Amino acid sequence: MSDTAGKTIQCKAAICWAAGEPLKIEDIEVLPPRAHEVRIHILYTGICHTDEYTRSGKDPEGVFPVVLGHEGGGIVESVGEGVTSVAVGDHVIPLYTAECRECKFCKSGKTNLCGSVRATQGKGLMPDSTSRFRCKGQDIHHFMGTSTFSQYTVVADVSVVAVNPKAPLDKVCLLGCGITTAWGAVVKQPGIKGSSVAVFGCGAIGLGLIATSSMVGASRIIAVDTNPNKEAWARKFGASDFVNPAKLPEGTRIQEYLVELTDGGLDYTFDATGNVHVMRAALECCHKGWGISTIIGVAAAGQEISTRPFQLVTGRVWRGSAFGGVKGRTELPGLVEDYLQVQRDRRGLPRHAFW
Amino acid sequence: MSDTAGKTIQCKAAICWAAGEPLKIEDIEVLPPRAHEVRIHILYTGICHTDEYTRSGKDPEGVFPVVLGHEGGGIVESVGEGVTSVAVGDHVIPLYTAECRECKFCKSGKTNLCGSVRATQGKGLMPDSTSRFRCKGQDIHHFMGTSTFSQYTVVADVSVVAVNPKAPLDKVCLLGCGITTAWGAVVKQPGIKGSSVAVFGCGAIGLGLIATSSMVGASRIIAVDTNPNKEAWARKFGASDFVNPAKLPEGTRIQEYLVELTDGGLDYTFDATGNVHVMRAALECCHKGWGISTIIGVAAAGQEISTRPFQLVTGRVWRGSAFGGVKGRTELPGLVEDYLQVQRDRRGLPRHAFW
Repeated sequence: MSDTAGKTIQCKAAICWAAGEPLKIEDIEVLPPRAHEVRIHILYTGICHTDEYTRSGKDPEGVFPVVLGHEGGGIVESVGEGVTSVAVGDHVIPLYTAECRECKFCKSGKTNLCGSVRATQGKGLMPDSTSRFRCKGQDIHHFMGTSTFSQYTVVADVSVVAVNPKAPLDKVCLLGCGITTAWGAVVKQPGIKGSSVAVFGCGAIGLGLIATSSMVGASRIIAVDTNPNKEAWARKFGASDFVNPAKLPEGTRIQEYLVELTDGGLDYTFDATGNVHVMRAALECCHKGWGISTIIGVAAAGQEISTRPFQLVTGRVWRGSAFGGVKGRTELPGLVEDYLQVQRDRRGLPRHAFW
Repeated sequence: MSDTAGKTIQCKAAICWAAGEPLKIEDIEVLPPRAHEVRIHILYTGICHTDEYTRSGKDPEGVFPVVLGHEGGGIVESVGEGVTSVAVGDHVIPLYTAECRECKFCKSGKTNLCGSVRATQGKGLMPDSTSRFRCKGQDIHHFMGTSTFSQYTVVADVSVVAVNPKAPLDKVCLLGCGITTAWGAVVKQPGIKGSSVAVFGCGAIGLGLIATSSMVGASRIIAVDTNPNKEAWARKFGASDFVNPAKLPEGTRIQEYLVELTDGGLDYTFDATGNVHVMRAALECCHKGWGISTIIGVAAAGQEISTRPFQLVTGRVWRGSAFGGVKGRTELPGLVEDYLQVQRDRRGLPRHAFW
């Protein structure tokens, strides 16, 4: 039992007071976890474009003031009543996609989109519809059920998973969003081994898609980005080709170019840009008869994707993926072990060597 | 060998001389089949909306003058050199979706969209880029590789299949398009047994979708049509519910109504209308996390489907189906046998009784 258990903790957090305002480091009060809640000492956090999207004010569902952040790693400081899945001292990753194992989504075996805390999470509140953050006398909203831009945060017990404490939290915190999103989108899509793949957008997600496609044995991996500096990165992560749509001959659309380049189109494509025009191109460069395009990027509010229905009638499939289709509590511990194993392999250590 | 073999046949055909004009019954000359071609005495033909769509002039790829029709049944009158898959006297169904068994599409095992005769078929010509129809001194175009609105027609040998001669051609000609399209779209979609289904549009395709969904054991089948007279038909074919979008409370969208009615949405939906707004509704009433929507209807030229990408990112899948995903030469004979068996069962005859 930590000596802070049951008490309000004073710490630093980055608060966004209103839509469009810069983050401000503030002294914040973090209340103790209630039943089925977990208070976490956050040691590391990534920054994802979704944080910036909400900060910017473009997200119509954004609520303020708020503690953003959803890609973190930390250590459990204390737990509320009834928490059995994690314990004080556990190294944990907060999960913006909860996993209750009891709702119809979790039980379906078909999706990772747990419905248990969705309604209150969307409103920036804990499941009991209140906040655990206070600053300057007012309640501060939570974000995506995680709020990792704070030294301490409180999450629902269905929204956190313990991982091997030997794993460096500054690395595996990235499994809380970006890397897992990319990894799962590829690994959970049967058939990529031996197939051609195009990845639109070579940011963290795109590079993760390229690396995972390479890992599972795609026969060809075409990276697509308008930034020429991404070519070296894409090739380093496993891309066999790099195409810059901005450098195509005048009047050539990227989908037509890729269909030509691949003699009919790609077997699998992924959008990792969030741009609805790119999403369309990613669908339309799929091979007639069997090409499958997966949307991963989050588009701006009100934006819509379009295509001629003939594209689908002639055998292309348009789908999407959130958090890579990964069930966080069930699958992240194994993914952390996989990461550790790769590191051991690199250092020439035997499979079960101490870290 | 028929005594017309090798000769030009004079017969009647319904010709559409120009876009938008009514069909006109004309005396036509049907030239003998060349190598790998088959001349068929057409005994029956259905009329499909796609014929009317091209006749109307709305199809930008329509070519005129033309013999329309693609849902026929007939008997082989003669065959050209090298034809081995059918013989004179065979009862056959012409196939607008060819099956060559040699192209990369046929060999893929992933699609029924054979590429062998696609280019010339789209231009209204035989594979050697000429026509077998003459009328009033000019060449008349073929249509969809079948042209069943003629007493005699010529098709490529990859575009025809022999079926059990005991089957009544006035019935099984419908397997040349509508019934097979509906049957295949359901049967080739795993998981419909025990699942909820919504069918938009209760024409021939829609009723076929309802009947097949019922046959494979869907738990609930919601028929959707703005024509109230379709309710009795839909229920007769197996629908458990009928919803008329035109009778919803003011301001209620059909997708929202169906999501409410089904406590979260449908497992599978099908569009059999060709209306792009209906296609959107069919996608958006799918259940979050796993709902799959299949487009079957053919939209007018230039029309596009749209939705928010969030619909796909949260687990819905948008796909399509052409000719039900059925490989005509491989699968239609069995489908005809299934039909015969159902008829025997209805008459109380044993499974292998003579027809």
